Order: sequence, then C-alpha cells, then structure tokens
Amino acid sequence: MLNADVRTALIDIIGKKRYLDRPEELACYAYDAFLEESLPDAVLFPQTTAEVAAIVRVAATHRLPVTARGAGTSVCGAPVPVHHGLVLCFSKMNRIIEVNTADRYAIVEPGVINADLQRALAPHGFFYPPDPGSINISTIGGNVALNAGGPRCLKYGVTVDYVLGMEVVLASGKVVRFGSRNVKDVTGYKLSALFCGSEGTLGLVTEIILKVVPQPEAVRTVLVTFNDLDDTARAVSSIIGSGIIPVAMELMDKMTVNAIEDAVGLGLPREAEGVLLIEVDGISEACEREMRRIVEKVRECGAVEVKEAATAQERDQLWAARRQTYGVFAKIAPDIISEDVTVPVSKVPEMIRRIREIGKQYQVAIGVLAHAGDGNMHPLIAADRSNKEEWARVLESFGAIFAAGAELGGTLSGEHGIGLAKTPYLPLVMDQDSRDFLKLIKRAVDPDNIFNPGKFV
Amino acid sequence: MLNADVRTALIDIIGKKRYLDRPEELACYAYDAFLEESLPDAVLFPQTTAEVAAIVRVAATHRLPVTARGAGTSVCGAPVPVHHGLVLCFSKMNRIIEVNTADRYAIVEPGVINADLQRALAPHGFFYPPDPGSINISTIGGNVALNAGGPRCLKYGVTVDYVLGMEVVLASGKVVRFGSRNVKDVTGYKLSALFCGSEGTLGLVTEIILKVVPQPEAVRTVLVTFNDLDDTARAVSSIIGSGIIPVAMELMDKMTVNAIEDAVGLGLPREAEGVLLIEVDGISEACEREMRRIVEKVRECGAVEVKEAATAQERDQLWAARRQTYGVFAKIAPDIISEDVTVPVSKVPEMIRRIREIGKQYQVAIGVLAHAGDGNMHPLIAADRSNKEEWARVLESFGAIFAAGAELGGTLSGEHGIGLAKTPYLPLVMDQDSRDFLKLIKRAVDPDNIFNPGKFV
Repeated sequence: MLNADVRTALIDIIGKKRYLDRPEELACYAYDAFLEESLPDAVLFPQTTAEVAAIVRVAATHRLPVTARGAGTSVCGAPVPVHHGLVLCFSKMNRIIEVNTADRYAIVEPGVINADLQRALAPHGFFYPPDPGSINISTIGGNVALNAGGPRCLKYGVTVDYVLGMEVVLASGKVVRFGSRNVKDVTGYKLSALFCGSEGTLGLVTEIILKVVPQPEAVRTVLVTFNDLDDTARAVSSIIGSGIIPVAMELMDKMTVNAIEDAVGLGLPREAEGVLLIEVDGISEACEREMRRIVEKVRECGAVEVKEAATAQERDQLWAARRQTYGVFAKIAPDIISEDVTVPVSKVPEMIRRIREIGKQYQVAIGVLAHAGDGNMHPLIAADRSNKEEWARVLESFGAIFAAGAELGGTLSGEHGIGLAKTPYLPLVMDQDSRDFLKLIKRAVDPDNIFNPGKFV
Repeated sequence: MLNADVRTALIDIIGKKRYLDRPEELACYAYDAFLEESLPDAVLFPQTTAEVAAIVRVAATHRLPVTARGAGTSVCGAPVPVHHGLVLCFSKMNRIIEVNTADRYAIVEPGVINADLQRALAPHGFFYPPDPGSINISTIGGNVALNAGGPRCLKYGVTVDYVLGMEVVLASGKVVRFGSRNVKDVTGYKLSALFCGSEGTLGLVTEIILKVVPQPEAVRTVLVTFNDLDDTARAVSSIIGSGIIPVAMELMDKMTVNAIEDAVGLGLPREAEGVLLIEVDGISEACEREMRRIVEKVRECGAVEVKEAATAQERDQLWAARRQTYGVFAKIAPDIISEDVTVPVSKVPEMIRRIREIGKQYQVAIGVLAHAGDGNMHPLIAADRSNKEEWARVLESFGAIFAAGAELGGTLSGEHGIGLAKTPYLPLVMDQDSRDFLKLIKRAVDPDNIFNPGKFV
C-alpha cells in the first residue's frame, strides 16, 4: 500500500482514470503466463514519455519498485512485480509513429501489439519478422524486453536483430536515445542491444525504431510425417547441415499432435511419432528449388508423408495448429510449463532422446515442441500444481532438462527469457564471474534497484 | 617509459621475445590508418587468455593504459595509444579453434585474419559475411572492436549480427564469457553486443564465437554507368524502395573512378558521372529474376550502360577496382581521410548533392564512394596535412558533411567507428544525457579507465 503523498504525487502526474489501486483491479496485474503471482501496489497507464519519466522520478525518490508490463504474455515471470510497488502498463502508449518503407524502418511506442504493426506494414508489402506465439496480443515493448523470437526467426533472426534504436527512461528519470533510423550505425556502444532482452531491469523503453523487411514473393509450406521421432530430429539436422535455411522448421511429437487433435481436430496425423512443419519463402523459383531439396532430405531420413499446403487457407490452418499448442496444453491440466531450452542444431536428436528419458525417469508426460531448425526446444508439461508430489517431479524433470541442454553445449533460453523461471539455473551456463558482471551492469545503471527487482540480476 | 619493476613483471608473464620497447620498434605501433600518432611504452604479444589476464592485472595495479591492437587498419584512430602505456597486439592469438558448419558457427581467437577465416570456411561451403575493405589483413578481433561492416553487409548485416558469444578479460583481470554456440540465446543481458563496437574501451576480447552461413549457389554482378550522379543516387533508392535487397550496391563518382583508372587501369568508364557495382546472390533462378528487376530499375533511372561480369575473373576484377579505392587515393596526396557518414537510403541523392556543394564551398575535391544500398557514404579526401591552409578547409568540410548527415536523419559512422576521428562530432547525433550514459557504462566496467583511454568515452 502506497503512502498517501506518493499516491497523490502519482495521480497528479497521470490522472485518476489511469491509476488503479483497488485490490480487484490489482489482481489482474499480478501474474503473467508463468506460475508466480505477486500484487503491485498500484498500476499506472502512462501515455507519454514525459509521464513515464515523472513517475520514475517519484519512484526513485521513494525507492519504489517499477515493473514494466506489456500484454503480460511472458512465460518466465518477467513482468510479475515480486517486490510489489508500481506496475507501468504500456497499453496506452500504442501509437505507430511512423512507417517508412523507403528507408525500411518503423517507429512505434512500446504498447503497439505485434500483429497491429504487421497490419500497418502489410499494405506497403513489408513485414516485421519476429513472430512470437503471442503475436496477436503481445506488445513490441514486451517483445523487446524479452528479446522475443518465434518460428520464422530461423531465417530472419530475433527481436534484437531488428531494433535499430530506442528511447529509454533511466532510473534518474532522464530520457536517453540510442541508435538511429540507419540500418548501419556504430556511433557509440550498442546500447539498444543491451536494453533488448533486459526484461525491464535497466530502464523503461518508451519508443522503438525497428527495421522492417519486404514481404517475400512466395511462401511454401509442408507438413512432414515420420514414424520415428529420431528420424524427425535427424531430418532437422540434415536439412540445416546441408546449407538450406528455411523460414521455419517446427517439430511436434506424438503427444503434442494428439493434444492438438483432441482439442481442435485439424486433421493432423495422430499416428505420427514426429511431425515437421517446414516453410520456405522468397522468389517463387527459389522456393520451388529449396522445397524440392527439403523433400529429398526428409525422405532420406524416413518421412512417410509429405503434404504441401495447396492454398493460403491450408497454410493458415497448419500454422493455426502449431500456434494453438500452448492453449491446447493449458486445457489438459490446471498448470502448464512451456519450457525453452536451446541446443546446437546437430544436438537436436540427442536432446530429444534425453527429454524422453527424463520424462520416463520422473514419470512426467513431456510434450516436445520445437523451433527445431535453430535448436530451440519447448518441452511442455501440463500438470496440477496442487498435487505436490507430482509437481515436485515436474520441477525436477525441468532441472534435469536444463542440465542436459547445458551438457550438450546448449543454453537456458532461446526466446522466453530468464525472469523468475530460469534464475536458479543460470549457474549451469554462466560462471560466477560472468554472472557478477551482469550484476555490475545492473548496479551501475539502476543503483537503487528500482526497475523490476527480484529477477535474474 | 615503464619503470623497471613493471617491465620485469610484464616480461615475466610474456617472455622477452614477445615484449618490445625499443623506440624503433614502438614506432610501428603508434598509428593506424587515421592521422594521429602516439607512442606506446611497450608492445606485448600475448598467446593465451591467461597471459592477457595477467598483463591486465599488472596494468590495473599500476593504472597503466592498455590498448588492444589487431592489424592496425582502423581508420578512426581507435588503436592509437594516445595515453601511451601498453599496446596488446593480438597477432599471435590467431588460432581458428573450431569450425562447425553443422551447427553453423566458428570459434576464433581475436588475431585471426578475416580472409583466413574465409579460407577455412570455403571448403565446407560456408562463409563469414562481414567483409571490410581490409578483409585481407584486418583481424576478427579488430572487426569485433569496431563492429566492422563491408559491401555485402547490405544483405547480410554487420559484425554484431554474427557474434554469438565471446570471452573477455575485464579490467579486474577476471575472465568472463557471454553468449554461446547457440544461434538463439536470451540468457542474461546481450553483453557480446555491448563489447562489439566498444573499440577496446571496456575489456579485451580473447575468443569469439561467430555465426557462419552457407555460400550461395550463384552470384551475379553488374557494373552500371550513369551520365548523372543524381540519377545514380536515385537508382539506389529506387532499387531499395522496390523491396529488392542486393548483396552489395557500391556507388563511385567520377573522381573516384578516374582515380582508380589513373592508378590501375581496370577499364572503368572514365566519362561516367556515376557508377554502381551491384551484386546479388542466392539460388540461380532467384539471381536471374532479381538482376532483371535491377536492370529495369537502373534503366528507368537513366543508366547508359549495364555490363555484367561474365566470369568469376571479371567479377573479381570489378571488386578489385572497388577495393583498391583507398590505396589509390592514398597515392594522390600524402594524407587521406576516408570518412564514413550514413543516412537513410532515401536521403542518398540529397546527401550526395550536399557533399558536392560542401566540396565547392570549401574548395576541396571530395571523392564519393558509398555502400549506397544502406546509405553508408565514404567521402574521400586526399590532401596534404603540411599545407595548413588547405588542411583547415579539409577539416571544416568534414564538419559540414557530418552536420549535413545528422540533419538528414543520418549518423556519424556506419562502420568505421568513433575512435579519435569522430569524438568531437558526437553531440551532432547524441544529446548530453545519452553521451553521459556511455560514460556511465565505461566507468562501471573500467573504473580506472585503463582500457584505451582518451577515446570517445
């Protein structure tokens, strides 16, 4: 509960309508798509950078925690205000300030929804590549905070590859700008990249300049079925190892496919042990050639069926199946963890074997879903947290998965971030001195630890 | 001059053979390809990370400046030891530790020459995209320190886009590691990106994990001639604006073409007011289609001749012409400045007009060379520093060029870095608070300012 003076100071900045502090209101801002919850003392909806800066100055004076929030779709607990204080919800800073396709950039406020940006770009024949599963609801600010990925990042790269510049409110309340509208810019340290993926722990991003790219002329999508999950994984390494880089190469195991079929019945092959959803794009002749090579490769690896989407509608249906996985698993049990461990792509077959062994060992049913082309695996578990015995096994199984990933040269997160979920596992992939360096940066930039305290740093 | 104890301590670490401090030896490490010179007190050639860390601990104890050096090809003064102290030359840390094309990465020591990495990758059908003009002599460590670019960065991106991870020796002498072999990795802050482009001011990079990519199946290269420089620039914006992204699109003006012809006689069209060297790569059918569209666009913009390289040899010859520009200008006069100002690509025609006006205004002959597709211009002046009156006009003209670039929404450097050359101009593109933030990071990471002091931060 904030003291009355602070409350008045904040309402003076933002007005009563954009200030929430009744318990029933606060409850909506206590959680994300991870498991932890914690109530903020107040939720504020700034509309301008000046308001954000003024709020931060009040917070800094009173050492009040400030946690930024986009749409709350994070799956690692990043926007959960574990130390309470203020949640700054950026949903009202949602203007697309400029779309400039001649110079291939767009300038947006952090609350712009990813899909809305796509809709603004499409009439110009352009798009913004990062496409997290949450594309229809998550915000660019949240995408930047978590350095979001998505299926097509295999070919196109992740959020940080598209952030040309940004405006940031620092803990001092000062407003700084890094980068520019220029695709090439080596003027000073690459600070946009430092803030991208910093999960709101270093400052509040209030404006973002993004690189945008021309839409490809053609897209081709196939669904490939295997009788063996090992074969499926081998096909992934084989395609990537041969030098082809598809837009996306999504892997689903039998459990995942059947969960989707049970829930929404899209006609996926229930009997398959593994399924790959592969997409290429570009000039149509290039797509044709690449797809031919991909089909050769998957057949060599034992594919039993290759089904190409004949129409845009069929293609959308395949992707809808893939995109619904998370929701589908959420229907199976009260709690779901969608994990995010990444290994070098040649280790995908081994990592999948390990995940299955770990599932057996801990008697936990683990669905495997992966942006397999870049080794980014999303093991999925649907379970019931209130069943303490089962839950303990679930947590142990994830610990084992992270350890296996690290042992194979992998890392803790490809796109979900660290937040609350992964902090305990950081030592698996970063030694003490390297972790200390994260803290050194955090302390220098936010000496009173007002920004999103209690997270990985 | 170092005191005897420090000298002994350093020689104890590295041995006498890898320690230089005679004046005639030091003179070779006092400069780069920019104009300033400053002698170090000693030059050391470490062979291992442990040696680097031990040297840094001695330097930190005695607050001795430590300036890293690769091949010394920087054109902004970055490796010039303006505060004297130690130069650490990484030429003996030049091992290619691993090439892994299945997982698409290579691990190298900082002293590996860019072209040597290319030679190691070529037999596997892979390459490392960043290709600075200095590719045959500059080192990956130097490329990382300056976040180097090059012609093909138009399609492929610059160094930071390829740095997956690194090992760094901090000012404390501690060794930290960021990133991993994984293409997708959001585990903690993106610190590899912070060190990339930091010009040796934050720490010493001792190992680098680089993303590598498959070689394209086909490459096509054309040389396009225009009778008007405005038309040339318009063709650039027209191609990029239409959604085509060539590998490279190099622009040369009449002065540049004639300087090349005078020096090496490669058969470039001397009478042309503007020349574009355009390259596309990929699957052959795609190259064919893209090249056809490019030729349409340049003809629409008034191209008078379009000449395609029929053989690999002809292609190499066209690129040799482009790559020799710097050396050719260096023959014209005792001193050369190759500048590096970047504007949004739609502003390329306007920026070229401004550069020509500025040349007239200050009575300075400015050659225009540009990675035009990404708006990265390299105005070139060959002059004589000993002619003080002329030199004053040269410096003023560059100030005017940077101001013009900033006014058009551009930035100070696309790929050369800030070093000594651009520090005075930083206020044109970064306000005081943003510049203060650079200093805040520097102070936090290197509190005694031992790493490359006297540079932009």
